[in-house]
Amino acid sequence: MKYCNQCGKPVVLRVPPGETLLRFVCDACQTIHYQNPKIVAGCIPEWEDKILLCRRAIEPRLGLWTFPAGFMELDETTEQAAARETLEEAKAEVEITSLYAVFSLVRVNQVYVVFRGKMPSPEFGLGHESSDVEFFSHDKIPWENLAFPVIHETLRRYVEDAGRGRFEVHFGVVLPMKR
Amino acid sequence: MKYCNQCGKPVVLRVPPGETLLRFVCDACQTIHYQNPKIVAGCIPEWEDKILLCRRAIEPRLGLWTFPAGFMELDETTEQAAARETLEEAKAEVEITSLYAVFSLVRVNQVYVVFRGKMPSPEFGLGHESSDVEFFSHDKIPWENLAFPVIHETLRRYVEDAGRGRFEVHFGVVLPMKR
Repeated sequence: MKYCNQCGKPVVLRVPPGETLLRFVCDACQTIHYQNPKIVAGCIPEWEDKILLCRRAIEPRLGLWTFPAGFMELDETTEQAAARETLEEAKAEVEITSLYAVFSLVRVNQVYVVFRGKMPSPEFGLGHESSDVEFFSHDKIPWENLAFPVIHETLRRYVEDAGRGRFEVHFGVVLPMKR
Repeated sequence: MKYCNQCGKPVVLRVPPGETLLRFVCDACQTIHYQNPKIVAGCIPEWEDKILLCRRAIEPRLGLWTFPAGFMELDETTEQAAARETLEEAKAEVEITSLYAVFSLVRVNQVYVVFRGKMPSPEFGLGHESSDVEFFSHDKIPWENLAFPVIHETLRRYVEDAGRGRFEVHFGVVLPMKR
């Protein structure tokens, strides 16, 4: 951030009075510009004993697999965002049935909020951001070709929970990939 | 938003190519300025069979009661944010033990992520944003003087869950107060 989005004058990085963190501040109009993490809403679409995954047609991690997920927009709930992403990326309808995970990705300032979603029918299609969409049974998940560590961590727990027949709600931090 | 925070030129509201939603766009430097909901991280601090609530010393809803909660900052996890707010508002330490609720407040574009936190000792104090901090047993919660509908909804479910000895993780939408 270099300029104030309210008045167009340059901003400076400073700790405002009464606060403890550095903020971008506009000395011309006194606006303090707060920056906050973004929510990525995701859905694990379920049909019978399979889940629906998408192969990314866009960077980053083009060609790798993920469940539908994307940035939550203004004027929607996290559940609506998760269902919308499923419709956009996999052309699949889901009924959100439960919250499954809240994972913080500190390095990129994202919080993943992932739901389970029941598909009313096995119909799906190719969204613009997907080069392939497929059902996977739990023992056929493409572990070596998942797009992000948070996708791996979420699906690892999901398959583990499914295996013992009891789904918990998970939270915690997911670290970046080792290079 | 009136000006581009990257180059200082005026922005316009327009649907960018390949997208479907109106965004603030800079024609000078081509930056698309996305706007997203913010996370409010909260904690219900528990000591034995009581919870710790704070009376707000600041607007909005000055003088009314809440559990510690505030905007998640960059470079922290939601759990760290919830524990930090508890330390700031109630000068109390907590060990985050479980995720309790994820509630979308669509009208104000906030998502509350609330945890339960175990206090290792009953020590607390007055943070700058609190005019009073007190322990409440579940049958003494000041229902008529809670700060926001999301606080009411969260504590209503909490007391209900506690009553039957089984805590679930809740999610959904919380509507604004009726006027």
